[in-house]
Amino acid sequence: MTATTQSHPLAALDTPAAVIDLPRMERNIARMQQRMNALGVRFRPHVKTSKCTPVARAQRAAGAQGITVSTLKEAAQFYADGFGDILYAVGMVATKLPQALALRRQGCDLKIITDSVASAEAIAAFGREHGETFEVWIEIDSDGHRSGIKPGEAALLEVARTLHQGGMLLGGVMTHAGSSYDLNSPEALTAMAEQERAACVHAAERVRAAGFPCAVVSVGSTPTALSAVQLDGVTEVRAGVYVFFDLVMHNIGVCATDDIALSVLTTVIGHQAEKGWAIVDAGWMAMSRDRGTQKQQHDFGYGQVCSTDGEVLPGYVISGANQEHGILSREGEADTDIARRFPIGTQLRILPNHACATGAQYPEYHALAEDGELSTWSRLHGW
Amino acid sequence: MTATTQSHPLAALDTPAAVIDLPRMERNIARMQQRMNALGVRFRPHVKTSKCTPVARAQRAAGAQGITVSTLKEAAQFYADGFGDILYAVGMVATKLPQALALRRQGCDLKIITDSVASAEAIAAFGREHGETFEVWIEIDSDGHRSGIKPGEAALLEVARTLHQGGMLLGGVMTHAGSSYDLNSPEALTAMAEQERAACVHAAERVRAAGFPCAVVSVGSTPTALSAVQLDGVTEVRAGVYVFFDLVMHNIGVCATDDIALSVLTTVIGHQAEKGWAIVDAGWMAMSRDRGTQKQQHDFGYGQVCSTDGEVLPGYVISGANQEHGILSREGEADTDIARRFPIGTQLRILPNHACATGAQYPEYHALAEDGELSTWSRLHGW
Repeated sequence: MTATTQSHPLAALDTPAAVIDLPRMERNIARMQQRMNALGVRFRPHVKTSKCTPVARAQRAAGAQGITVSTLKEAAQFYADGFGDILYAVGMVATKLPQALALRRQGCDLKIITDSVASAEAIAAFGREHGETFEVWIEIDSDGHRSGIKPGEAALLEVARTLHQGGMLLGGVMTHAGSSYDLNSPEALTAMAEQERAACVHAAERVRAAGFPCAVVSVGSTPTALSAVQLDGVTEVRAGVYVFFDLVMHNIGVCATDDIALSVLTTVIGHQAEKGWAIVDAGWMAMSRDRGTQKQQHDFGYGQVCSTDGEVLPGYVISGANQEHGILSREGEADTDIARRFPIGTQLRILPNHACATGAQYPEYHALAEDGELSTWSRLHGW
Repeated sequence: MTATTQSHPLAALDTPAAVIDLPRMERNIARMQQRMNALGVRFRPHVKTSKCTPVARAQRAAGAQGITVSTLKEAAQFYADGFGDILYAVGMVATKLPQALALRRQGCDLKIITDSVASAEAIAAFGREHGETFEVWIEIDSDGHRSGIKPGEAALLEVARTLHQGGMLLGGVMTHAGSSYDLNSPEALTAMAEQERAACVHAAERVRAAGFPCAVVSVGSTPTALSAVQLDGVTEVRAGVYVFFDLVMHNIGVCATDDIALSVLTTVIGHQAEKGWAIVDAGWMAMSRDRGTQKQQHDFGYGQVCSTDGEVLPGYVISGANQEHGILSREGEADTDIARRFPIGTQLRILPNHACATGAQYPEYHALAEDGELSTWSRLHGW
């Protein structure tokens, strides 16, 4: 391992560092886009995972149409970087309308969402006041996990009416079956994908039957996008984390560990040999505090340990973390030979539980191409 | 509440935002410094909590001597901002020595630490090669929770000899009783503080008895610093999170909720009224994924809800979180009146589980003075 480390292109990086394995990322992008093409729907990636323009460009180059963002800061940066068709997929409130207006005035084709009459009224009033026809989609609750109007609720048509009669462009309906993250069998995932599809299509049919426009029917989460058998009535799918994948997605069953494109490069800085611990410089600041695998079938602690070449070292995980210290140990019986196995200075790569959370800890990614070339890609931080 | 929100100085901020309550912060700083003065020890705050120069300046103005950092990037920034006496409190490895050398060559009085012969040899060899006498402290394991050499171990004197005979300045010993975070009674905390003190002093005595210098005896964690009855033999204390405090510290018993100086300003963006949920724009990206209160006597979910004035709203917590969505609910029985209690647009402040983790999610703090004046203070991100 020491010989490998010394000759590896990552050896020059200061640790901890966030590394993107570009061949894996490109494979993940191609897999999702091919699937969407086969299902006959447009694909609008959620850039909240990477918050990184070169990653979104790779998604667009593969065929993605438009992007989804989680903050208006993302919208502003991606618009500045040449992405015009942007869905801000968090419920709009009055205080954020000036930012949305400014983006639209700059030429950004920003879509916003709502799930309440109160917000719909605020959007319509603000739009009329400023002579702006906001395009608004209605958020549908397809699985009870978060926001949205249930497809059969009376409020759905009240919101549609408020927007349409208020002079806004009622662009469509959208949903996100986030409870797919709680599943781990192909059958359950396929059923959830169908539930997500059926709920959103039903909502669209109700809106249209009431005489309102509803061009877009937008669904998605990485697990449902990769599990849907048919998407009749759906016009587009959104997904984010598939671009990198992570250990949570591995436990759900939609990727293998060697699909995971994001890892944290770390260095062994010490040992507690009698306990079977190596201490590494990737603590929770480097991995994030996300413990998303804790309740899943395989708890990877704060991450799965790999060689610098990205090969999984089975059974070795980050079992504990302080701010800048990670405790690397073997699952089950302690490895009392750990100081010889991973001497001080050894570089390792750690696969994260949750790529969206781990990526957020870094101002930039180091993108590693197949030929060993490294590129530094900056990443958005904050709001 | 709506009237309060509209007149409040925070109403102008985009949400989510990290807010520092300056009177509380100043009170926390004064409390710790007075305690250290009474115990007759120097105080070296750990700036990993705030990573913010104005905060460290306030600590220095109150009497702190030197700072502790968790990354060499912090060391570089704080040195550039006028802090000369810096302890880098993570075990040094060979690959980071060039950065440490560069800082010392610029005039920074940087101290580094080690807990192994291998690293001590690497430091001494690198130092001799570059004509630099690094000041090195030996890390002591006082509670078995992480790194360090046990005070009675033979390795302690081997490391001391390696450094001293290798031409480095053996500056002292240091320890961090991080397992104090698992306690919650004054008796147990006082006992842990004494364990930390005794272990570090014992290590220093062994080093000195073997004929090596050991000027500094440095201990500390926020819970033990606030619980120590006497610190005989200790020369300095380090602590970080006390400057803001948080819900974990509240559960440990070393602060009240109205000592907590860091909060996240958020806006209500929707409801699922029949479930008793308000949806806010502070999800885990805004709060961090830290769930440090999960195993404690009071699990606050992702945070305790307060009014914009910072008054705790008892029983209301962030019970769930997605990336940019928080679920605000009442503990116990659902509050089916929640949509009236917290209408869309309501601003609230959320006390975090762990200030170090929550602060790290933000590029800047908004510091709120007693007179309502707001200052924007930038914060370090990454490595």
